[in-house]
Amino acid sequence: MRWATVRGEWGPRVCGVRVNRCIDVNAADPSLPSNLKDLLEMGPGGLEQAAAAVQSGSIGFDLETAELMSPVHDPGKIICLGLNYRDHAAESNAPVPEEPILFSKFNTALIGHGRPIVLPEVSQQVDYEAELVVVIGLKGKDIPRERAMEHVAGYACGHDVSARDWQLNKPGKQWLAGKTFDTFAPVGPYMVTVDEVADPHALSVKLRLNGETMQDSSTSQLIFKVDEMISYISKIVTLMPGDLIYTGTPPGVGMARKPPVFLKKGDVVEVEIAGLGTLRNPVI
Amino acid sequence: MRWATVRGEWGPRVCGVRVNRCIDVNAADPSLPSNLKDLLEMGPGGLEQAAAAVQSGSIGFDLETAELMSPVHDPGKIICLGLNYRDHAAESNAPVPEEPILFSKFNTALIGHGRPIVLPEVSQQVDYEAELVVVIGLKGKDIPRERAMEHVAGYACGHDVSARDWQLNKPGKQWLAGKTFDTFAPVGPYMVTVDEVADPHALSVKLRLNGETMQDSSTSQLIFKVDEMISYISKIVTLMPGDLIYTGTPPGVGMARKPPVFLKKGDVVEVEIAGLGTLRNPVI
Repeated sequence: MRWATVRGEWGPRVCGVRVNRCIDVNAADPSLPSNLKDLLEMGPGGLEQAAAAVQSGSIGFDLETAELMSPVHDPGKIICLGLNYRDHAAESNAPVPEEPILFSKFNTALIGHGRPIVLPEVSQQVDYEAELVVVIGLKGKDIPRERAMEHVAGYACGHDVSARDWQLNKPGKQWLAGKTFDTFAPVGPYMVTVDEVADPHALSVKLRLNGETMQDSSTSQLIFKVDEMISYISKIVTLMPGDLIYTGTPPGVGMARKPPVFLKKGDVVEVEIAGLGTLRNPVI
Repeated sequence: MRWATVRGEWGPRVCGVRVNRCIDVNAADPSLPSNLKDLLEMGPGGLEQAAAAVQSGSIGFDLETAELMSPVHDPGKIICLGLNYRDHAAESNAPVPEEPILFSKFNTALIGHGRPIVLPEVSQQVDYEAELVVVIGLKGKDIPRERAMEHVAGYACGHDVSARDWQLNKPGKQWLAGKTFDTFAPVGPYMVTVDEVADPHALSVKLRLNGETMQDSSTSQLIFKVDEMISYISKIVTLMPGDLIYTGTPPGVGMARKPPVFLKKGDVVEVEIAGLGTLRNPVI
């Protein structure tokens, strides 16, 4: 099932998507929360009860016209992997990492499908990166690789917008600042639950800039697979329901092109992952 | 005034500290939230109303025996500055940065006064770092330096626990992993409001390991001052009420000693900042 979060009149409303209609979970069943993270915290029973409510519910929003937020709009963590596609490491003149490279974004960077990416005045090198995003459903620490997939609630398209001048050319070489400008973490349009994703390592990943395909790869090319990254990350931190993992980007980013391509006002960026819909954001 | 967050029977309870008694704000005035972040989001009136409630309230906890959490236990961001004391940059064999170096910790790292720092099995080089923590009170983006101090609600002692092997020796050289193991962000014992801190750039900062003074400096030695860092960070992200800023550590860390000193089971670490109390955490 697809789960979207719509900005309603009084705040975020988690909705089940039925055809092109977002059915408000909490309106259909007031015993359920209005927030996807809270729903995930209820365990597998939460999404099941919500799915039943969505089947009978009628109050909601039109998927095309609703103001969508990131499906989880208030995650406890946004964890990102760097250089997780062999070819992207090569185009970045970086060695293929022997362990996952982890960095983060802050929640103030999250936006939903359709919302604008705002170019900061202080950067001249804002680049695009299409990524598969993993949504954690089940709390865990020190998760063995063979149990890792049990901790995944679903997947979504993600866009790891990156100010290269701030990511790569600042003292200390920490990527955080360049990765976490406001609006630099589009996710959506919705989360698709694991039962509808036959193999997360066989999904085509495409990014189009103003209609032109700039990235065209597959999650089969991931260096560290989803189960491996969850197991690795959980050696460091307790993963919590609603946590988001950006899994890294394939080749074709703007900075590696000759001449380089950076985002400019008026651009439209689309991230399309097979089965997960298309995440479209204008650039302003 | 001092504001602490106590883990109560049904969750976190923000309390005003009156002598050695933590008075439960929401119990004293049910119109007020039980969470310091929510209280800060109400604006200056929130803390004022809460202070009045604390004066008349009586339900609460004993400061010595209560289970304290980080004064803000669920911040939207934990932003950290690296190498922000000249002498610490020197002992780390790093140049004095020309701009603030930013990295982050996840909320799963936060613990309060008295709670144990848990040594991860996967690290052999866990180090201590005493730091002044700034608590943001007022939302802002692109904050000019001369208005920056208006955005500070208060200050607290912080401990930036750091697994050096994970911070410095991993592919990609991103500090996040080494800085964000569970329990690696002690903050407390409470937040002291700005009206009780005459000059945040004239506070002695001390760290004691098993009673022996290992760091002994002053916030007068900060390279980037509190107003400067707030202005800089707000060029990148919108600062929100409850956000925490770790301002960097003075010299004397364990990895710079000959021979190096790393934390071991049974150690007790105390961070003491003038006027902000002492943050004490055992190591297990």
